[in-house]
Amino acid sequence: MNKNTAILVIHCPDQPGIVTNVTKFIHDNNGNVINLEQHVDRENVRFFMRIEWELTGFNIPKEKISDYFETLIVKNYDMKWRFYFSDYKPRMALFVSQQMHCAYDILSRYHAGEWNVEIPVIIGNHEEVKTLARQMKIDFHHVVITKDNKAEQEAQQKELLKKYKIDFLVLAKYMQVLSDDFVSLYPNKIINIHHSFLPAFPGAKPYHSAYERGVKIIGATGHYVTSELDAGPIIEQDIIRINHTDTIRDLIRKGKDLEKIVLARAIYSHLNRKVSVYKNRAIVYR
Amino acid sequence: MNKNTAILVIHCPDQPGIVTNVTKFIHDNNGNVINLEQHVDRENVRFFMRIEWELTGFNIPKEKISDYFETLIVKNYDMKWRFYFSDYKPRMALFVSQQMHCAYDILSRYHAGEWNVEIPVIIGNHEEVKTLARQMKIDFHHVVITKDNKAEQEAQQKELLKKYKIDFLVLAKYMQVLSDDFVSLYPNKIINIHHSFLPAFPGAKPYHSAYERGVKIIGATGHYVTSELDAGPIIEQDIIRINHTDTIRDLIRKGKDLEKIVLARAIYSHLNRKVSVYKNRAIVYR
Amino acid sequence: MNKNTAILVIHCPDQPGIVTNVTKFIHDNNGNVINLEQHVDRENVRFFMRIEWELTGFNIPKEKISDYFETLIVKNYDMKWRFYFSDYKPRMALFVSQQMHCAYDILSRYHAGEWNVEIPVIIGNHEEVKTLARQMKIDFHHVVITKDNKAEQEAQQKELLKKYKIDFLVLAKYMQVLSDDFVSLYPNKIINIHHSFLPAFPGAKPYHSAYERGVKIIGATGHYVTSELDAGPIIEQDIIRINHTDTIRDLIRKGKDLEKIVLARAIYSHLNRKVSVYKNRAIVYR
Amino acid sequence: MNKNTAILVIHCPDQPGIVTNVTKFIHDNNGNVINLEQHVDRENVRFFMRIEWELTGFNIPKEKISDYFETLIVKNYDMKWRFYFSDYKPRMALFVSQQMHCAYDILSRYHAGEWNVEIPVIIGNHEEVKTLARQMKIDFHHVVITKDNKAEQEAQQKELLKKYKIDFLVLAKYMQVLSDDFVSLYPNKIINIHHSFLPAFPGAKPYHSAYERGVKIIGATGHYVTSELDAGPIIEQDIIRINHTDTIRDLIRKGKDLEKIVLARAIYSHLNRKVSVYKNRAIVYR
Repeated sequence: MNKNTAILVIHCPDQPGIVTNVTKFIHDNNGNVINLEQHVDRENVRFFMRIEWELTGFNIPKEKISDYFETLIVKNYDMKWRFYFSDYKPRMALFVSQQMHCAYDILSRYHAGEWNVEIPVIIGNHEEVKTLARQMKIDFHHVVITKDNKAEQEAQQKELLKKYKIDFLVLAKYMQVLSDDFVSLYPNKIINIHHSFLPAFPGAKPYHSAYERGVKIIGATGHYVTSELDAGPIIEQDIIRINHTDTIRDLIRKGKDLEKIVLARAIYSHLNRKVSVYKNRAIVYR
Repeated sequence: MNKNTAILVIHCPDQPGIVTNVTKFIHDNNGNVINLEQHVDRENVRFFMRIEWELTGFNIPKEKISDYFETLIVKNYDMKWRFYFSDYKPRMALFVSQQMHCAYDILSRYHAGEWNVEIPVIIGNHEEVKTLARQMKIDFHHVVITKDNKAEQEAQQKELLKKYKIDFLVLAKYMQVLSDDFVSLYPNKIINIHHSFLPAFPGAKPYHSAYERGVKIIGATGHYVTSELDAGPIIEQDIIRINHTDTIRDLIRKGKDLEKIVLARAIYSHLNRKVSVYKNRAIVYR
Repeated sequence: MNKNTAILVIHCPDQPGIVTNVTKFIHDNNGNVINLEQHVDRENVRFFMRIEWELTGFNIPKEKISDYFETLIVKNYDMKWRFYFSDYKPRMALFVSQQMHCAYDILSRYHAGEWNVEIPVIIGNHEEVKTLARQMKIDFHHVVITKDNKAEQEAQQKELLKKYKIDFLVLAKYMQVLSDDFVSLYPNKIINIHHSFLPAFPGAKPYHSAYERGVKIIGATGHYVTSELDAGPIIEQDIIRINHTDTIRDLIRKGKDLEKIVLARAIYSHLNRKVSVYKNRAIVYR
Repeated sequence: MNKNTAILVIHCPDQPGIVTNVTKFIHDNNGNVINLEQHVDRENVRFFMRIEWELTGFNIPKEKISDYFETLIVKNYDMKWRFYFSDYKPRMALFVSQQMHCAYDILSRYHAGEWNVEIPVIIGNHEEVKTLARQMKIDFHHVVITKDNKAEQEAQQKELLKKYKIDFLVLAKYMQVLSDDFVSLYPNKIINIHHSFLPAFPGAKPYHSAYERGVKIIGATGHYVTSELDAGPIIEQDIIRINHTDTIRDLIRKGKDLEKIVLARAIYSHLNRKVSVYKNRAIVYR
């Protein structure tokens, strides 16, 4: 909080000297590293790193860091990289349905200032959340999607996202499948909560399937949305034990608590620039 | 331990009065109930119960209880039932491969007298366990199954199971698929450990698949073997968190500990007559 | 939900025949048992049971069941018993401070109709929740307790509880110690959430202590309040793993999620008449 | 496995440039970093790092690395440091009692070659393990400690540890308190398993205390032994849910499985040079 830091999230083919050269770039310019996590994926011979340093006293002006880093480092390593300032508040759009438990949970955290985030707009196919949105001074847009109007309604949603300068989307039990076209506009920027331990029970009615199969544990999965349903990079998962006395209703009730906690953790990791994606796997830094 | 009790595990279509009549049967004959668990599966309108009572002072002689219960109770309720005495030691056959961690764990417990079980025979396609078996005075039979000799080798295994009066089988990382014919001889009496959180990642190499998919949690499942691979009733499951620094080797290492604990718990529940199966779901009493 | 059932929660010195006689009482009067859990605490030779049956068609009128049960059963067994109707909505008072995460979570559930509960009043030493309370049509009373006015302020609180016909209290991070006198008015009817895995780290600042001690897991405990601080019967506990990169701030953040889930589970068990207390231990039925 | 790497585990007062200079030292001498974890403890303004690099092709000869590192780096940072080669097999002494579950588990792993460790000697106050030790070609010494002979028996144990060139000790349910004098010879080199979730229930009979207190979860703790009983740095903890139907016997049974897994994980972390201790807190690298 109240931090003035820069964050680099990078990956590239592994080779000697990357850590040295990146940290040297920061150190030589009078930056103090306060967080560094790196690891090498031996399978893919790929280097991953997240590094955060204090900007106070850093010799390179904020607006030029990105440029310098690209010139001095990125080119030498065929590096994929993202660069952030911690004093920027990411702008999130919340997509909701009439299943409000995740949305309420997110809005409570928003109201309490728990996260470094701005939520300028909520988009929903039900008006349930309207009053609450107004109190929190969040605009609400009622967009109902049917088989016939999907294309135009998504067009309207895209307009809204542009208008509100949205950085990323959270589908808080939105219960609608976004078109491939829409998804492709926000790669690794749409977070969904699925109410099962993926890859078990993808698709509709996972609690019913879990009941049928007689599993002893149910789960929830927070993941980025890709064009393939429930198959995007997994950011966070958790589980809870169930037993034979639990009805489907009980699974739904117990699952709801899981869903909101798992979604919240996924959002927290995203907001804090702790997620990196490579080959459909999410690296989640501590 | 050292108990002298009778255990009934029953299920039947739900209707009023079952608990009363079963407990009355025991109480009227001077039995003291020390454990009773019942529940009704509303979905299937089915009643389930496990009841255990002390035999000391019970009016009906041990050898006649079963007969009396069938006549006085079972017929009135279209009841599926199993009846056990706690002073009987179930006889278990251990099937092993060269992956010995589960087998070692089971044999340690056996040696320490942790379970009420008799293990007269180990059957393996590797001789790794031979010395240890000899020390524990357990017979070891080396049965190697290939594509060509499966029928005859299974015939030999069946002979052994008969000879040793085996009540149930444990596949401790046996890594072989039993024929349908074999499985049908031991319904809900063959316990297998699968190294994933079923129904996720059935079949071969689940840790590799888990790594590929980038899950944040891996699991293990102890289940009864049915003719459909990895689809039998689930007795026990547990999980452990993993992270992006874990290689497939790490998943295998972490998973091994899960596998042995989950298999041990499944065996414990089976041994204590705490498992009841209906429509491919295992009810596991406390 | 929408159930019309009766619930008995009993315990008494163990002796043969209790299950039979209680279920017979229900069965003979045309009641259908839909839930029965019983167990015997061997240590204390004590019998515990929770039984629920449908009232539709039950021969004894609602208002006389309690009387009949006492006469016909209770006296014979020196029984402690509580009797409930599931169509009654328990009335809960919510005590809050400026730490609002648990209160928000409870109010979200209330708003969504997740629980069978009535919350007529919130009592707080901060006015943070006032607006939200008004929207939900819950009265809010601002009661600030200092060293000097504790007695009179508690007197006012007691008045409010009487006026609103409160059945039980939830201290949602209330951060105040109630006087013994107050506590004694609501035995096993005041639920508190403590932000540690009790009995580890009772009292103030448990996250700081957890950090100092270098534990690898933190917890939260939902318990009934007794005169001894943080020593009442434990209804629910859960934990989350932490690591050395977590600061005290991180522990607080991670702990908050635990606190709200654990408190919610404890309230759920209480509301559904699933908790029984004997010798400061809480029996929590499934 | 089969690795030829060097490992540095360091901590020192935090200041800019440490990462750069340490990685530069390795990189400039042609070493390839394959693992680096670092973090800063803001509370104590202290820098922690574990770094591992491949020795193949490294310019500085193995026997001189330590010397060079001390001269070039350590002195500039007031650094605490430990230096290891991964091709060295740490030598472990196993201390056992008649409670054998942890010892069996460790020996199974040893037999299976799961760990990079040498166990030349087992020391026990019971002879239970003697046969098994002999088969594994591990020397067994029977050392019985009573009130009267503690000093001389510990003297004998110290002799044995010297003779077998022991690097670290594992107390696998040893159930004896070592003298301060003994402990001080092996700082952060004696691993104990305590059968509770420390700091809850230190000392004797934690399962009995857990039962009395009515906790809903039990735990186990693997920690380094210090002069204060059960108060040393915590390496690993885990828990398992229990319920009111569990007797003390059940807690002991369920706890045993926890104990062996938690102890094994603590040993694994120690063996892989992943533990660093500062102010009685254990930093455990991934």
